[in-house]
Amino acid sequence: MKMGIFGTGIVGRTLAQKLASLGHDVVIGTRDPKATLARTEGDAYGSPPFAKWHADNAKVKLVTMPEAARHAELGWNALLGQAAVEALRSAGEDALAGKILVDATNPLDFSKGMPPSLFVSNTDSLGEQIQRALPRTKVVKALNTMAAPLMVDAKLLADGQHSTFVSGDDADAKRTVASFLREAFGHTDVIDLGDISTARGTEMYLPLWVRLWGVTKTPMFSIRVVR
Amino acid sequence: MKMGIFGTGIVGRTLAQKLASLGHDVVIGTRDPKATLARTEGDAYGSPPFAKWHADNAKVKLVTMPEAARHAELGWNALLGQAAVEALRSAGEDALAGKILVDATNPLDFSKGMPPSLFVSNTDSLGEQIQRALPRTKVVKALNTMAAPLMVDAKLLADGQHSTFVSGDDADAKRTVASFLREAFGHTDVIDLGDISTARGTEMYLPLWVRLWGVTKTPMFSIRVVR
Repeated sequence: MKMGIFGTGIVGRTLAQKLASLGHDVVIGTRDPKATLARTEGDAYGSPPFAKWHADNAKVKLVTMPEAARHAELGWNALLGQAAVEALRSAGEDALAGKILVDATNPLDFSKGMPPSLFVSNTDSLGEQIQRALPRTKVVKALNTMAAPLMVDAKLLADGQHSTFVSGDDADAKRTVASFLREAFGHTDVIDLGDISTARGTEMYLPLWVRLWGVTKTPMFSIRVVR
Repeated sequence: MKMGIFGTGIVGRTLAQKLASLGHDVVIGTRDPKATLARTEGDAYGSPPFAKWHADNAKVKLVTMPEAARHAELGWNALLGQAAVEALRSAGEDALAGKILVDATNPLDFSKGMPPSLFVSNTDSLGEQIQRALPRTKVVKALNTMAAPLMVDAKLLADGQHSTFVSGDDADAKRTVASFLREAFGHTDVIDLGDISTARGTEMYLPLWVRLWGVTKTPMFSIRVVR
């Protein structure tokens, strides 16, 4: 399947590597591919420069945002939260029309110090902002409640016995994404929370996630809904 | 032990009944005991009038807020979120000085329709507001991530195999509350998140909790931190 990933950070790379290893035709979209490849320093989160990662993952093509949008049969938003709406608009509303976009980002605001706060919450969410910016795209919020390695390989933790959430306005799109998460990424408990406004719930979980990380000292944890 | 519970709703009643059944000397504080007892209608959440509950729980005395504060060796905040800070101030900063106050409330705002939003979040929390209002009290945020029956009897669900959180500035107070939750209420996994600002995390989990309730159709669920 033709996969278009938006964002060159750790989440985008992890998704790209996994999807390519499963045989999908994967591109990563970025604003300026030449600039991204020219960077020689890692990012603020300790990831190595993109070019270094790309040398080991040459099957994944780095392209512009509009090229990634046109390539995608299934889209994955792994941009930084604060850049996501504008960057996805630049990718092209028309090119993404009718397609599913899995939104794995969180509206983290690091400008007020650590731990981060959220730049949108409570009565709105980043998932809803993206859905409003791309009204003909089927946005499915998913995977934003866990660290990147667990997103693509849920069985790394407790044999996958933790929960994953999907939020979105299109029931078929959610079913498609939920099946993909189960079959490709090993998620055992995918919970459909409801329409895209339920993304407020999973995004607002992030402040608890961040504090739990402080306690566990590793991001390799998640939550299970016990019922 | 002398227990002072603030709030006559379902959480206050559930705590009172359980603590009294364990042999503690329990009072419930309310603004105007006569008015509370005179009410003949249930509340908006389907609870019966207080007098009806009280007839079955006569060991629990209904008193004024200041009387409950003076009585308490251990305090429990089960007020409605929006009334909590002012009502606890009226109970008396001096009477609560040096004491532990377990804060089980959430800053739910029902004025903007359902599901509720939070009237404080992100860069502040109700737990912090209460700690600032009662600077000499040891506020420990706890139990606010689950329904009242699970607060006092964690083993009602999955033999207690779900997680409970404590947040507070006083390490001894948190240890005391954590032990109490384990020994009296059957909680098996009590996680100390850190100082009182970590209450932002558990309070901001509520929008996810509310949406999960919509999915499970019962409030008898909780989350386990899998690590």
